[in-house]
Amino acid sequence: MKSFEYHMTTDILFGMGQEAALPDRLKSYGKKILLTYGGGSIKRNGLYDKLRVLLSDFEIFELGGIEPKPRVETVNRGAALYKREGIDMILAVGGGSTVDCSKAIAAATYWEGDAWDMVVHMDRITRALPIAVVLTLAATGSETDAAAVISNPNTHEKLLFFSPCVLPGVAVLNPENTYTVSPFQTASGSADIMSHVIENYFDREQAFVPDAINEGLLRAVIRYAPIALEKPSDYEARAQLMWAASMALNGLGSTGKNFAWSCHYIEHELSAMYDITHGAGLAVLTPKWMRFILSEYTVDKFCDYAVNVWGCERSEDKFTLANRGIDATEAFFKRIGLPSTLSAFGIDDVHFSMMAEKACRIGRLQDAYVPLSEDDVVKILYMSL
Amino acid sequence: MKSFEYHMTTDILFGMGQEAALPDRLKSYGKKILLTYGGGSIKRNGLYDKLRVLLSDFEIFELGGIEPKPRVETVNRGAALYKREGIDMILAVGGGSTVDCSKAIAAATYWEGDAWDMVVHMDRITRALPIAVVLTLAATGSETDAAAVISNPNTHEKLLFFSPCVLPGVAVLNPENTYTVSPFQTASGSADIMSHVIENYFDREQAFVPDAINEGLLRAVIRYAPIALEKPSDYEARAQLMWAASMALNGLGSTGKNFAWSCHYIEHELSAMYDITHGAGLAVLTPKWMRFILSEYTVDKFCDYAVNVWGCERSEDKFTLANRGIDATEAFFKRIGLPSTLSAFGIDDVHFSMMAEKACRIGRLQDAYVPLSEDDVVKILYMSL
Repeated sequence: MKSFEYHMTTDILFGMGQEAALPDRLKSYGKKILLTYGGGSIKRNGLYDKLRVLLSDFEIFELGGIEPKPRVETVNRGAALYKREGIDMILAVGGGSTVDCSKAIAAATYWEGDAWDMVVHMDRITRALPIAVVLTLAATGSETDAAAVISNPNTHEKLLFFSPCVLPGVAVLNPENTYTVSPFQTASGSADIMSHVIENYFDREQAFVPDAINEGLLRAVIRYAPIALEKPSDYEARAQLMWAASMALNGLGSTGKNFAWSCHYIEHELSAMYDITHGAGLAVLTPKWMRFILSEYTVDKFCDYAVNVWGCERSEDKFTLANRGIDATEAFFKRIGLPSTLSAFGIDDVHFSMMAEKACRIGRLQDAYVPLSEDDVVKILYMSL
Repeated sequence: MKSFEYHMTTDILFGMGQEAALPDRLKSYGKKILLTYGGGSIKRNGLYDKLRVLLSDFEIFELGGIEPKPRVETVNRGAALYKREGIDMILAVGGGSTVDCSKAIAAATYWEGDAWDMVVHMDRITRALPIAVVLTLAATGSETDAAAVISNPNTHEKLLFFSPCVLPGVAVLNPENTYTVSPFQTASGSADIMSHVIENYFDREQAFVPDAINEGLLRAVIRYAPIALEKPSDYEARAQLMWAASMALNGLGSTGKNFAWSCHYIEHELSAMYDITHGAGLAVLTPKWMRFILSEYTVDKFCDYAVNVWGCERSEDKFTLANRGIDATEAFFKRIGLPSTLSAFGIDDVHFSMMAEKACRIGRLQDAYVPLSEDDVVKILYMSL
């Protein structure tokens, strides 16, 4: 177990109707709110109207239409709005894309110049607007972390930036706000949660307490994602998925660990280049990556995974057991309706070398649980084809 | 899963040598530190000298000799010191008793009148001095919660008070600082951690994510307490116990649950009256309470406990399986060297009725997982004799 610092200060309001607490929580930030949202689902399901009524004492500015893979030009647009109107805070209403974009806007308001420059030089961020979140999708965990992913369509780049300044101050997690999430997005979100946990779990550094938490979070998704798919307004299922999503990426699952991920960096290259949903891409890559890294060095961890996550019985042969866990992972993603090949998304091998080069350059793949070279990434991509 | 608010803002510095970060973290609070500690183990093991050197730029006032069950007169003494010297912050160096006493002092500095009055009227606390902690015992979780237990020897009362104001701002968790903890205190601390988790786990409200975490924390203690007893300076064992202790009571394990405990209120009466270590008292009471509440209503939860915590196989008969989990709990406490009867501590039945009456009056035992009447508590105490 490595040394670590843990400091997660977001005030989490979890449960039905918790939006009602927002006016009281937000008033200490000021009067002018930049309300950010995505494609308009919050207008169709009534959440937008509910919040406008609740926040009638505030002056509201809006930035809607945030893309599923938020773009740097949208960030610049949000920051310009701040400079024009003197916004006091951002209220992000949506899933990870809206929250990520809002984080970037919050930091970009105090940044001189183009926001892409800020994303690249994240260590120079010193200040950001306060951020509050009303979450509408259980997936990225962005509501309780200090990271965001921003895309630059001009360069086909998709970069992760971290800054303690962009940790949300308040997060409303009302599971009811996820009832209208589509089956595909519910499944993709579930795969994203599982991938966050799996990335933390398969790590060079062993740490019992965080890994026991990680195993529990995986069991929660495995149990409740199928229920949410069958009955989209099952409160308990939506609640467990929502809480698991936050817990998966609030930093606890990586305490004491090396925290060098693998699949996410490969997937970011896929979704920077193609029209593929992040969680769905992860569901394709993860089982193939698992098979690729299974070896004498990793087999014991895979056995723990098979037993503690999937309930497999300890068998004589370690590799049989390890593969049973990987098979179960792959079968689960299929069961919740996600494609298991890149071809299903119309992706071919044209850009594999270039994507592998970028994944290795941007990610810390050489520090990963099993270090990955460009050749390794290309092999994993071919396995996923 | 019930609605909840989660807001735990303590900055946790975990690992070897993390004390070194203290001067930088504390300087924002001011210059004058009240250094609180217990019976002097920190002078014997060198931690006191190390901290005095590290904090040589600060003006240090001292309050040593804090009792294992911190007394209200010590709280008043600390508050008087503040009023005389104008302290800026408290640095608690010790286990739960020192941290709890420091929390009470931190709030009592802004309280007019006797500190016992403050403990009784905890909802009137509005302000407290900043608190930092250097933890030396894995047990109470007080380093990342907003609660404290204070004793009044005159009235044989031992009360728990909560106030968001007393949540520590910084907590240094260096597992090396627990190497010199005695076997009995290591075992009692481990029983205390397990009891916190068990109290959260056996609850009227079901919630998968927190309970998966709770099961993992129990497995961590079951695995690492015997290792720490066998090899007191095993870093990994001390680290997992220390992190499990904080995680057990940082509020995550009770998110979405009813949070009405049982054994703690009964034990507080025992240790208010007799010379018994809190964790050791809990180790006596917990398995008896489990047997007392086992019924058709609770048996499924006990089966989960037996399987997911103790690794028992699912058997045909639910009650057999449930009892196997309880037997394992009892055997584990014996294995780590804790007595399993009250008689072993020289406690007889003289005060059972009076203690039962107080436990029911002070605790919310009627709201517990299985509601307990005074008669029930007396029965559990007799089972524990």
